[in-house]
Amino acid sequence: MSILEKVYYPNDLKKLAISEMETLAQEIRDLLIKKVNTTGGHMGPNLGFVEPTIALHYVFNTPEDKIVYDVSHQCYTHKILTGRKEGFLKPENYAKFSGYTNPDESEYDCFVVGHTSTSVSLACGLAKARDLKGGNENVIAVIGDGSLSGGEAYEGLNNAAELGSNIIIIVNDNEMSIAPNFGGLYSNLRLLRETNGKAECNFFKAMGFDYYYLENGNNTAELIELFKKVKDIKHPVVVHLHTLKGKGLAPAEADKEAFHWILPGTLDKKDTPEQASENYFTVTTDYILNKAKQDKTVFAISPATPGAYGFTREFREKMGKQYTDVGIAEEHAVACASAMAKAGAKPILSILSSFIQRTYDQLSQDLCLNNSPATILVHWAGLSGADMTHLGCFDIPMISNIPNLVYLAPANKEEYLAMLDWSVEQTQHPVAIRVPFGAFISTGVADNTDYSKLNKYCMVEKGSDVAVIALGTFFEKGKELKRILKESAGIDATLINPKFITGIDTEMLESLKENHRLVVTLEDGILDGGFGEKITRFYGNSEMKVLNFGAKKEFTDRVPLEEIYKLNHLTTDLMIQDIKNLL
Amino acid sequence: MSILEKVYYPNDLKKLAISEMETLAQEIRDLLIKKVNTTGGHMGPNLGFVEPTIALHYVFNTPEDKIVYDVSHQCYTHKILTGRKEGFLKPENYAKFSGYTNPDESEYDCFVVGHTSTSVSLACGLAKARDLKGGNENVIAVIGDGSLSGGEAYEGLNNAAELGSNIIIIVNDNEMSIAPNFGGLYSNLRLLRETNGKAECNFFKAMGFDYYYLENGNNTAELIELFKKVKDIKHPVVVHLHTLKGKGLAPAEADKEAFHWILPGTLDKKDTPEQASENYFTVTTDYILNKAKQDKTVFAISPATPGAYGFTREFREKMGKQYTDVGIAEEHAVACASAMAKAGAKPILSILSSFIQRTYDQLSQDLCLNNSPATILVHWAGLSGADMTHLGCFDIPMISNIPNLVYLAPANKEEYLAMLDWSVEQTQHPVAIRVPFGAFISTGVADNTDYSKLNKYCMVEKGSDVAVIALGTFFEKGKELKRILKESAGIDATLINPKFITGIDTEMLESLKENHRLVVTLEDGILDGGFGEKITRFYGNSEMKVLNFGAKKEFTDRVPLEEIYKLNHLTTDLMIQDIKNLL
Repeated sequence: MSILEKVYYPNDLKKLAISEMETLAQEIRDLLIKKVNTTGGHMGPNLGFVEPTIALHYVFNTPEDKIVYDVSHQCYTHKILTGRKEGFLKPENYAKFSGYTNPDESEYDCFVVGHTSTSVSLACGLAKARDLKGGNENVIAVIGDGSLSGGEAYEGLNNAAELGSNIIIIVNDNEMSIAPNFGGLYSNLRLLRETNGKAECNFFKAMGFDYYYLENGNNTAELIELFKKVKDIKHPVVVHLHTLKGKGLAPAEADKEAFHWILPGTLDKKDTPEQASENYFTVTTDYILNKAKQDKTVFAISPATPGAYGFTREFREKMGKQYTDVGIAEEHAVACASAMAKAGAKPILSILSSFIQRTYDQLSQDLCLNNSPATILVHWAGLSGADMTHLGCFDIPMISNIPNLVYLAPANKEEYLAMLDWSVEQTQHPVAIRVPFGAFISTGVADNTDYSKLNKYCMVEKGSDVAVIALGTFFEKGKELKRILKESAGIDATLINPKFITGIDTEMLESLKENHRLVVTLEDGILDGGFGEKITRFYGNSEMKVLNFGAKKEFTDRVPLEEIYKLNHLTTDLMIQDIKNLL
Repeated sequence: MSILEKVYYPNDLKKLAISEMETLAQEIRDLLIKKVNTTGGHMGPNLGFVEPTIALHYVFNTPEDKIVYDVSHQCYTHKILTGRKEGFLKPENYAKFSGYTNPDESEYDCFVVGHTSTSVSLACGLAKARDLKGGNENVIAVIGDGSLSGGEAYEGLNNAAELGSNIIIIVNDNEMSIAPNFGGLYSNLRLLRETNGKAECNFFKAMGFDYYYLENGNNTAELIELFKKVKDIKHPVVVHLHTLKGKGLAPAEADKEAFHWILPGTLDKKDTPEQASENYFTVTTDYILNKAKQDKTVFAISPATPGAYGFTREFREKMGKQYTDVGIAEEHAVACASAMAKAGAKPILSILSSFIQRTYDQLSQDLCLNNSPATILVHWAGLSGADMTHLGCFDIPMISNIPNLVYLAPANKEEYLAMLDWSVEQTQHPVAIRVPFGAFISTGVADNTDYSKLNKYCMVEKGSDVAVIALGTFFEKGKELKRILKESAGIDATLINPKFITGIDTEMLESLKENHRLVVTLEDGILDGGFGEKITRFYGNSEMKVLNFGAKKEFTDRVPLEEIYKLNHLTTDLMIQDIKNLL
């Protein structure tokens, strides 16, 4: 009988001997490797935090004591130990639980968390509420070294240090967040590791914390001893654990970046890397490399997730001094890019739609108020079946209502490259480009549009009665809609590729009034505050009817994309029905 | 002849002796006191940074060398020394230059800056661009101690430390930002002051910087000596200056908070404080104090600007442990409030519309994704004649398109109090309330609306033909519009107070179709992504015409409010014209 068979909840852990917990760690690790290699997901972070999680649940009394996991992409062991091991034992149950903490799954989870650097602030709030209510539970934040570079973590630390009561910050220092860590802070973490935590110059002490260091952060006995020492402590404390990311899986230990998050079946693949066919990542990196060679002021910036847009090691090496990863520091990334552009360089910042949410004020104040001609590539923007913490469908309302910004939506490779090149070379506007994801469309015909003429939509086919304005990645849906409108209703619709998200082509919209009675807009995101509503506002004082297709304002959680399309009438059939109902 | 008469540009400074610069500092101080007391503005920050500014311009070669001022509310001496002294000499020129840096005014200003904590990231970008272009100018960021608590500053420091080339961060430590500083970091600044910069535990060294300390941060000779030492340095350095906020003005030295920013004529006033009449500030603080007395879990949070919403010293003292100022740390404030609410406490976070921009991701992820029933009071939201760095007209698009949030717009005191009380007591939704500013409206009749019935608009008067939906502070404009429509066109318009910004009352909107042909929406903010567009989208498929009144998406800079109203057709006359044109 395995140890895990006896363990369902943390109370079962408390009956185990240290040696049994060590065996349990190995059993859990085997499950994690098999599960993550099957479903894909966060491999390295979870493998590195098995023993600390066991020790936490052994020493503390969860769920009364609260553990807040930063990003929560290291919470699989926590899930296994808190009533959810079935989701890891059998492949048919693998999809049962999310990859992140979620209070709807278990009372042992404090928050839905998927973005980084939030744990200390959240824990601080729990501790403040406890103090107001006169409770005495422990409040613990688990934060990885990578997450420490985010501003929210620092704001949290600065305030947590003054709490004057129990809060325990576990710093999971695995020398590596996603890609290698960058920033001055990391030299201090190194110094602390090298001095066994004894260096006088100590970031955490400077922030006002009591401080403990553990070199063997994967040693169960030492972890338990240390956690017992800080349990019920009456002041803020940082517990700095040196752990091994990917522990127990040789390739993950050897290549921490590649095994941070893996695709299904990664461990089963042969050693020969696949030859990637052309896609929006390769098109982007090819363009940037070529441009950077010609112009030494071209500069690529990534905030901690280079792999998410194809900034491979080879690309980064070739870029050399013309590339930087600023770490998890999106606010800095935008402000820095803005200043570079203002000073005459040509910065290109790549960022995910879900994470650009951290930069509204920097986009507004540092970038747009200064009209800095930086280029921002927004990746993974659009509806998707992603976890609710990583949705990319809110960028249009978030970004496009900021003055001065030009937000562009290419529908294919050629438009994308033309927009990118225009943006990098122009000096008048802050520009963001919504890089398509999913289907790679190449027209084979170069796009010679002059994008300096702002808000000029492209009339692709001139028809009558109905006009379809289909934005970016949904332009293909617009084409299909036009085709079916002809087939099924005999309507020869006008088809428009607007390209510009941030402004309307009043002249073209005005001209449609002549022989159209319905304008249909399509956008790959939520409707509220988005693109289509601006078109509708334009026609508000006229006889023109307008139908806006896009998604409802909501957080969807791993809802398959096809279902999202159906629920929002984004399939051609359902759109046709809605249109016919109106004509 | 005064020294200042000989000084127009930094080059003129370089001919002066130290003693002459000391005299110059006194002359400048006299101007600053007179000017700020006349126009209102930032008194303390400017008075404390006279000598450092003189020394900077004496030692460095601006504008080739770049100085980036954080917040830039300490830049008046810089303006006086860089060709703009006329704006400070004669009262008739006082309005000539803005209270912040602006490259349109002078090549000595690097950026339009008005929000805090941005200087290090911006300087970092200037330095990176310089390195790519092979330049050798100095890049200097001037950051006050208060601004150090913002996450963007930390992200900037973390990256600047790794720059590997010249960047000089001047930390202007006056022991005080706006209100007293809060946070663990400030204990380290104190330690450094007390040890003359010699303490081993040093936040800046831990972040990877070379470090210099100057105790007499207002001593011109010592400043010059130190700046000469770091000029042309080839690595990142922090220069920590201990300065005196409000220096040279006794009441400002004595009460640093009260003299951070003053109203015109503050120095001329007698000692008796005015008895404030009832207003939205007093209504808020009275409510919170009363509630907090009854319920120990009620907790007020302010991010660094308590005076901006009437959180007086008396209020703060009375709140005791049920109040915290988190410093300039809006991200933390939102996440912390969210966690407190999740843990059963009743947090009320007050924040300015312009600064809530720093929290989009925290609103989305920490608050709304977790459906935490925290209360956020958004102050100073709406169109105004403010500086372009401090506009409050973007909050509706920024906040209201985030799922799960309930954003409410009261039109008067009674609605405000009813909404506030509902929000504090309910446990289902994150709630934000757009606190009115400007005219204080009391109906004298308690509002008994059940706000748990979301998105139920209030039909104030039922008419026909035209329906006026007037949101929040613009409800009074809606009433006036209805009155004039009757008088001038005989139209008996319907008047609706929507109260809910984040959703539409489909039932009521549907019912309007029966006997209305035009719906008019009024909102106090920009139209793009705002409230009215959602109404328009609802009617897109119908015969109903819709006119949205609100402002154009743009950054306005000290444009008088009446002019903004005219330009955007927000006066009753212009609205009537637009409506008549359509009927």
